[in-house]
Amino acid sequence: MNNLEIEFLKSATTIDSSIFPNSKIPNWIQDRRDAVRVLVKEMPLENMRQWKIDESTRNLKHDSGGFFTIEGIKIRTNWGQVSNWTQPIINQPEIGFLGFIAKKFDGILHFLVQAKIEPGNINTVQISPTLQATRSNYSQLHKGKRPRYLEYFNGEVSVNLLLDQLQSEQGARFLRKRNRNIIVEIEPEREIESNEDFIWLTIGQIKQLMRHDNIVNMDTRTVLSGISYGSYSADTLEGLFVLVPGPRRTRLMLESALNRECAFNNFRNIVSWITRIKSTYDLFVERIPIRQVEQWFERNGTICRDDGKYFTVIGVNVSIENREIVSWDQPMIKPAQEGLLAFIVRPINGVYHFLVQAKLEAGNFDIIELAPTVQCLTGNYRTGKNEYSVPYIKEVLSAPQDSILMDAMQSEEGGRFFKEQNRNMIVEVDESFPLEVSENYCWMTLNQMLRLIEFNNYLNISARSLISAISFA
Amino acid sequence: MNNLEIEFLKSATTIDSSIFPNSKIPNWIQDRRDAVRVLVKEMPLENMRQWKIDESTRNLKHDSGGFFTIEGIKIRTNWGQVSNWTQPIINQPEIGFLGFIAKKFDGILHFLVQAKIEPGNINTVQISPTLQATRSNYSQLHKGKRPRYLEYFNGEVSVNLLLDQLQSEQGARFLRKRNRNIIVEIEPEREIESNEDFIWLTIGQIKQLMRHDNIVNMDTRTVLSGISYGSYSADTLEGLFVLVPGPRRTRLMLESALNRECAFNNFRNIVSWITRIKSTYDLFVERIPIRQVEQWFERNGTICRDDGKYFTVIGVNVSIENREIVSWDQPMIKPAQEGLLAFIVRPINGVYHFLVQAKLEAGNFDIIELAPTVQCLTGNYRTGKNEYSVPYIKEVLSAPQDSILMDAMQSEEGGRFFKEQNRNMIVEVDESFPLEVSENYCWMTLNQMLRLIEFNNYLNISARSLISAISFA
Repeated sequence: MNNLEIEFLKSATTIDSSIFPNSKIPNWIQDRRDAVRVLVKEMPLENMRQWKIDESTRNLKHDSGGFFTIEGIKIRTNWGQVSNWTQPIINQPEIGFLGFIAKKFDGILHFLVQAKIEPGNINTVQISPTLQATRSNYSQLHKGKRPRYLEYFNGEVSVNLLLDQLQSEQGARFLRKRNRNIIVEIEPEREIESNEDFIWLTIGQIKQLMRHDNIVNMDTRTVLSGISYGSYSADTLEGLFVLVPGPRRTRLMLESALNRECAFNNFRNIVSWITRIKSTYDLFVERIPIRQVEQWFERNGTICRDDGKYFTVIGVNVSIENREIVSWDQPMIKPAQEGLLAFIVRPINGVYHFLVQAKLEAGNFDIIELAPTVQCLTGNYRTGKNEYSVPYIKEVLSAPQDSILMDAMQSEEGGRFFKEQNRNMIVEVDESFPLEVSENYCWMTLNQMLRLIEFNNYLNISARSLISAISFA
Repeated sequence: MNNLEIEFLKSATTIDSSIFPNSKIPNWIQDRRDAVRVLVKEMPLENMRQWKIDESTRNLKHDSGGFFTIEGIKIRTNWGQVSNWTQPIINQPEIGFLGFIAKKFDGILHFLVQAKIEPGNINTVQISPTLQATRSNYSQLHKGKRPRYLEYFNGEVSVNLLLDQLQSEQGARFLRKRNRNIIVEIEPEREIESNEDFIWLTIGQIKQLMRHDNIVNMDTRTVLSGISYGSYSADTLEGLFVLVPGPRRTRLMLESALNRECAFNNFRNIVSWITRIKSTYDLFVERIPIRQVEQWFERNGTICRDDGKYFTVIGVNVSIENREIVSWDQPMIKPAQEGLLAFIVRPINGVYHFLVQAKLEAGNFDIIELAPTVQCLTGNYRTGKNEYSVPYIKEVLSAPQDSILMDAMQSEEGGRFFKEQNRNMIVEVDESFPLEVSENYCWMTLNQMLRLIEFNNYLNISARSLISAISFA
């Protein structure tokens, strides 16, 4: 039995803590929100300071050549019904760092979370990792403010590495973007410089906060999703349940997370399913000037479609006032409407199984990634009253209240996406739900998904967002 | 305990078989060789039938638009000492299929191997998988002869899937090329149409053949490398050793393959090592016309460098005569000289550990893949008498005879590479060899490597070639 995995499980099942009790969190967030004044005003792309629209390509880029660009891509694929399209995309080739410092208090792992301001945030501040930094920040290539607590992630301070994975961002919006997700542990006796924007929470506490809309940011969710809690035989599990007793659903979910034996599909068949799809379908992506992107136009200082679908690239002026005033302009992605991300789960052999979708998105690193049962980042899924264009969406939207395990709005990353939120749901279906599914769906236990997450570019960010919110208490 | 893994282990430790005894193999290969007349003549690229040099790009392509093209790429990276270069590369975006049919005889898995002719082969025929097919062959998109035994791989015949993985080809020669590696099992009572080019061998028999030069082709080696034999505790292993007794080295290697507990680096730290390297180093690859490739020229009907380094693109006329005569022209890659692929292994805690190298190659799918300790595909590694430009090569080349576990010449794929062979070695070092290694090297057990192989694009084809030859008997 792996000690670290047990430590993670103990933290995940600790849903309140005397170090920073749940009862104090709302006030702390409100205080952090009140301590700043954030103004975000839409502005025409062409007027942004330090950003330029290239005359020949119409691509958007920063004067420094850094940060990110908005460009076009041209896609060719034999997947799905549309075999060719062009679209704008964010190109940010640098790998960013999302990192937590963890430390044991009273023997339980706590994570140092930050109340962080991002211009696109709903609620102004959201709970974020200890460190969010680009490689340039991290390696201090450019001058500029050194990120707080950097020394725990760059080798200056000796730490115990708990997790270090490469994970993808939204394939429909970013061109092959990935982040490095890290958790480092420091000794319990080590004091860390305190700061009013940072508090220590258990994994269980953070998961509780995800039951509420738009409190925990995407970067936190992706790092937590990578945590696995080990694989055990049924016998060993009996011992663990003494540790974490609970109702039927908790038990089904724990079995799904920890039990390696009762899966409907064995792992070899899951790898084969992925192999078969990657061998059968192509994704050819060519970078093109945004000028050549079809059906998208520069209009009223934005880049958008005539039919208003998908998203609009807007310019914003951001101004943040607390002790000092910081102000800048930047492009952001504004979604056409809210989306829906949902897993259907079904008990099979006494273990929850997730209906996982293989999904091709233009910016994917390796053709397909594994997505939730339903993933509509922008929700044009209703074709009429009770008619939907997306498989399984009806089962999700018409699910009776008592079969909904989770239902909350969660935000996309507030540094690039303007008030973009998606409805995150996990819905249980009963044993009348067919086990037979079409080629691009597959039943998996949570244990199997967590085994895949460890390797890069297997589970997409939507699936990881839902997984992060799964509670074991 | 997983039954399949035990079946694989039984087959791997069965080094002779009454179904097709080792003593008959040399004659069978000689007969297959004698049954054909293969003529391969070098010819100028511009005279090849059905191939064309594009006037504006100077790229080489087939008249049908199919097969593969020879193009240029331009590389930009912060890895190593050369940050920019251009080179010719083979672009073959279709995923090929490499498949074995397996069947139990006397309770032991045997694999249906083929004596296959490839134009680039040393020894004319080499032992190959049951099926080697491109996706076009496989899906019968083009007309043309249906590959033999295809029905066992395309769902027409019901089979038991034993392995199905996506694996990479040479990153220095192919642009992100991958193959689907498959093993399917049929029922022992099922009779298969026999053919004089095909025989049934155990994994152990095939591994024995790899001790000889250029008998077992690359496609066979890559499929076999993906087989894992399970993970066991030290106690369970005791039982297995009754099954496969053997000398000290066999035991060290079996512990390395099967023991999950005694690794020098835990798996989390290995994933972190890969994450760190992929987060730190960039590989930007742009396709360019071969006309723009610097230092490479069209000369005497070939594409080559003035200094003769690396390789030459040549044209060949192939003619194969047995019952009928088949003849075609095609481009091939002719290496400048033989290369060297070698793993250094060292016992740590009673388990062999492999010194694995993270290596960036231009055609890699994901920046780096894991390579042998020493990988010089073309061997310009000698800078003077006893002076070498490549880390650890001296330890390999000056290894005393009794520390060499394996040493044989093995061929690259004979459909694209003209008589290209590399020296494959595994060399044992003792406990005076330093455990501390530089950033791009890492000690791993065979079990850990086999765990990574299951996921695509972790271990490169050179590492897999060496792994395939490891014998447990």
